[in-house]
Amino acid sequence: MHGEIIAIGDELISGKVLNTTCGFVANRLFCSGYQITRITFIGDDPDAIRGCMLSAIERSEYVIITGGLGPTSDDITNEAVAKALGRHLVLNKEILGKIREAERDLARPLPLWEKLAWLPEGAEVLNPEGHSAGYLLIHQDVPLFFLPGVPEQLEAHMVQQVLPRLRGLTAPKMAVMQQTFKVFGLSETEINVLFQDLESSQDGLSIGYYPNSPEVNVTVTVKGLNSKKVAEIFGMACKTIEELLGRYIVAVNEDTLEAMVGRLLLKNGGVLALAESCTGGLLGQRVTSVPGSSEWFDRGVITYSNKSKKELLGISPETLSRYGAVSYQTAEEMANGIRRLSDASYGLAITGIAGPGGGTPQKPVGTVYIAMATPEKTAIERFHFPGTRHMVQALAAETALDWLRRYLIYDTYIPGYRPARHTK
Amino acid sequence: MHGEIIAIGDELISGKVLNTTCGFVANRLFCSGYQITRITFIGDDPDAIRGCMLSAIERSEYVIITGGLGPTSDDITNEAVAKALGRHLVLNKEILGKIREAERDLARPLPLWEKLAWLPEGAEVLNPEGHSAGYLLIHQDVPLFFLPGVPEQLEAHMVQQVLPRLRGLTAPKMAVMQQTFKVFGLSETEINVLFQDLESSQDGLSIGYYPNSPEVNVTVTVKGLNSKKVAEIFGMACKTIEELLGRYIVAVNEDTLEAMVGRLLLKNGGVLALAESCTGGLLGQRVTSVPGSSEWFDRGVITYSNKSKKELLGISPETLSRYGAVSYQTAEEMANGIRRLSDASYGLAITGIAGPGGGTPQKPVGTVYIAMATPEKTAIERFHFPGTRHMVQALAAETALDWLRRYLIYDTYIPGYRPARHTK
Repeated sequence: MHGEIIAIGDELISGKVLNTTCGFVANRLFCSGYQITRITFIGDDPDAIRGCMLSAIERSEYVIITGGLGPTSDDITNEAVAKALGRHLVLNKEILGKIREAERDLARPLPLWEKLAWLPEGAEVLNPEGHSAGYLLIHQDVPLFFLPGVPEQLEAHMVQQVLPRLRGLTAPKMAVMQQTFKVFGLSETEINVLFQDLESSQDGLSIGYYPNSPEVNVTVTVKGLNSKKVAEIFGMACKTIEELLGRYIVAVNEDTLEAMVGRLLLKNGGVLALAESCTGGLLGQRVTSVPGSSEWFDRGVITYSNKSKKELLGISPETLSRYGAVSYQTAEEMANGIRRLSDASYGLAITGIAGPGGGTPQKPVGTVYIAMATPEKTAIERFHFPGTRHMVQALAAETALDWLRRYLIYDTYIPGYRPARHTK
Repeated sequence: MHGEIIAIGDELISGKVLNTTCGFVANRLFCSGYQITRITFIGDDPDAIRGCMLSAIERSEYVIITGGLGPTSDDITNEAVAKALGRHLVLNKEILGKIREAERDLARPLPLWEKLAWLPEGAEVLNPEGHSAGYLLIHQDVPLFFLPGVPEQLEAHMVQQVLPRLRGLTAPKMAVMQQTFKVFGLSETEINVLFQDLESSQDGLSIGYYPNSPEVNVTVTVKGLNSKKVAEIFGMACKTIEELLGRYIVAVNEDTLEAMVGRLLLKNGGVLALAESCTGGLLGQRVTSVPGSSEWFDRGVITYSNKSKKELLGISPETLSRYGAVSYQTAEEMANGIRRLSDASYGLAITGIAGPGGGTPQKPVGTVYIAMATPEKTAIERFHFPGTRHMVQALAAETALDWLRRYLIYDTYIPGYRPARHTK
């Protein structure tokens, strides 16, 4: 069943806003066996909406339309659609009731919102929960799904409404299985070389390599008419990928490296504490983005100044003056300091030069020392990360988290990212 | 001059990869006065490429095509284009020479690369530097620009080749001026209501409202044939927007709230220190994303456990046991503690319940106390932020930074985000 997506909004064709929702919708459909053949972005322009929608209705078996459904004056989709399809706009009392209810709850009027209740004649409201409700319109036997752009609302519409209705219309002909492996420490081409044979070995199997800095997403997809055969090939492919990538896989699908580290710490009763300099809180932010992280995370310090390194971590003035704040020795004392002062089982410390300024010939921009203190010992490595300030910070935080993950699973002190040659 | 963009690749319509290059190209053109009216994503499918390209040639004055120009087997754009336009593929000796040169330099063959030298008859190579050279094909008087997808190569092609050639074909008829105001503390519809009159008052003036959580981007665009008139309307519109939004504007165009706070601190010689609980380092991460922030940022602490609040900030055990870690009193002691212990001029503290767990009837998920300690006094407010864990954290960090910005500019203790009704 071939469908297409139309996204409406001046901000999309002027490039002011990056649209992520179309990719999301396309992927949801793809993974459910429904192929999208075309995605079109057009502006808030009634003629463009008319032309694009009529061609789509002729060409495709279903159409998904997003954008321009909100309350502000540039939201003109409903009006343009009604006109293009020769239908009146009709006041939907269900939606109007929800708006009035929300106004009572907030004890203030919601100006402009009444507009959300005027839908093209024949529209069936898809999800009466939430105010920017999506709707379904069947025109010349082609289902047109109008969906709100807000990600959570869109996801709810896709899962609860669109997919079940598509399945009601026709079962997907293709079985599709897909899994994404998040990989850190190998480049896209290094991974590609590993899988050249695997990909050509089976019909319907494809492997995609998508950099998602600092990780690379490796996506395996198997499609076919025979669902048993698809499952077989998929199982074999995933097993091969797991064997070949091994320790470099930091998470699978929606999981994250930080959530994985959290689960490992919970399992062994460990508690983590952080001492950050050049990452400035990024490591803490990633760790505390995991719900329930208070069970395995005690504290972090962001010691940006030398004074704070002495006061919060007990770094000796001699170390700072002799070796500098960005050094093997300072990183070691930082990790030991935060572990000792917090009574945590594990201390991670990062100190480096994120740039753009501050580099020297001996310690160029991108030089970062990471230390991991465990109950057994403290390991320290020097790294040289490429790229912008943002990239250096992201690579440093990822390397530190991944190092702890590797230690907790494999009991090893070898980091996933290759250290710089001279480590002291 | 109306143009459109076609992006080719299976990964785009299956939603596996987020395409950012089309937005970039569209924005480059838009800001140079060339309007893009449509962006289409299709798969690596000769029929789709043919259909989409022929329609575009009929409809538009120029077409930009990206994707599928590489050396691997799924790159079929050149072949499909040649067939669709009834042209042969011809070996381009200039490109072949470059490939052979690269092979000599690398001392290894580049398998598959020769394919890059086979271009549709009539193609004019746009940029002989670099191997994945773009090319121009003029078909039925419509220029078709074929561009590589790699961001740096694409940018070079746009700036050095595409824009000058479009200007050679026709000067942009339209003058365009555009500015984006980043707004925090007002909703999209609250802002829209303010500008209803302004937008309808002038031809060629449009205002867009794009939620970029936790901020709303308000983009003013003025287009017109008379560049003097455009500049006049643009100046008037920006002035009106600045007057109406006033203190709610946190940054303009590429600037950020955190960079703005940094400049204000530098100007008054102030130094900042942070004490974070529920934001877990997010505030520190934003502050230290600004290059040179070490000049005005001293330290941060992420006090997740009660123990760490006592040890790192000197919060009294009585305060914690009597009022709890998420309270007016704890926030106050956190801000005072970090300011006193660091000798910084300003202390910002955040403590709250980001969720999804941990809420109570008195302090539901989203309850956050923020305190700002200045040389004069310490102000504390209770907020109730809506949404997911991620949203609560983002709103809390933004509110704290914005509060300091408002204090530094306007000498006020009134935050931009509306506090919850009961503040103690």
